[in-house]
Amino acid sequence: MKICVLRLGHRPERDKRITTHVALTARAFGCTGMFLAGMDEKIRESINRVNENWGGKFFVEFVKDWKTLIREWDGIVIHLTMYGIPLLRIQEKIQPEEPILVVVGAEKVPKEVYEMVDYNVSIGLQPHSEVAALAVFLDRITDGKEFTITFPDGKMKVVPTEKGKVVEKYDE
Amino acid sequence: MKICVLRLGHRPERDKRITTHVALTARAFGCTGMFLAGMDEKIRESINRVNENWGGKFFVEFVKDWKTLIREWDGIVIHLTMYGIPLLRIQEKIQPEEPILVVVGAEKVPKEVYEMVDYNVSIGLQPHSEVAALAVFLDRITDGKEFTITFPDGKMKVVPTEKGKVVEKYDE
Repeated sequence: MKICVLRLGHRPERDKRITTHVALTARAFGCTGMFLAGMDEKIRESINRVNENWGGKFFVEFVKDWKTLIREWDGIVIHLTMYGIPLLRIQEKIQPEEPILVVVGAEKVPKEVYEMVDYNVSIGLQPHSEVAALAVFLDRITDGKEFTITFPDGKMKVVPTEKGKVVEKYDE
Repeated sequence: MKICVLRLGHRPERDKRITTHVALTARAFGCTGMFLAGMDEKIRESINRVNENWGGKFFVEFVKDWKTLIREWDGIVIHLTMYGIPLLRIQEKIQPEEPILVVVGAEKVPKEVYEMVDYNVSIGLQPHSEVAALAVFLDRITDGKEFTITFPDGKMKVVPTEKGKVVEKYDE
């Protein structure tokens, strides 16, 4: 299942940490990469550092023309918004072989996004967080893929432990 | 099911938005409130504004002595961390009648937290986001409660819609 994220409305000063959390969540839950509408080298650098240490090839790509990306996406485009249709009602329409582009906005999302996508999908009817919405969407759509993901090309991996932190190096 | 969140390590300048997302997620997914280790009136004000508009009585309470809060919690205390035991292996040990305190840290969590809690629980073995971890934890533990939560004492509610934003006022 190929899933990418498109992050809209990123303002480098204000959204740096939230956008980083969006990217890290996408990576940890098995997405291929994140398209960022705009430019922010710092985000890409910090994700690349995570890839180096923990493995995988999750990409961060800057796009100017995100409308073309949505229009020409070869698969299904889903916009996560509290105003959309509950995921439970949409989920069965998503075919596992179709590449998914998940659009997540910052505070204001242009009106036309709602028109351009295949589905506007909600995770609950309350205002909360694009990071939370993305995580629940991916967890449910992949049936908990994040629980089994490891990247053997990383430098280290976590060994689940009752108390404390145990990390194993791949090279040793 | 009573669930509260304890947010550790909040630095007002750096973490304002992430901590707000933690609180909004806790509220939208049915928690009773969030204890914040430290003080940040702005976080409380912004959550109170959400309560006013969208309803509910989600609280934000500042605590100095969070160790006592953990020690004296009348129920189960769970710390979300990528180093812990996968949720899938812990979930059956959580009794629905037990109040849950979910501890989420910012970047560095004091070592003793790992010792003090009942369970260190992971949502995947990769670094990602406390907002994402909290959302998946709550979604799974409550069996998707966020999809049905509404607060009739709010000013308005969302009407799920295929395209656009539809909001209904409660008073009309």
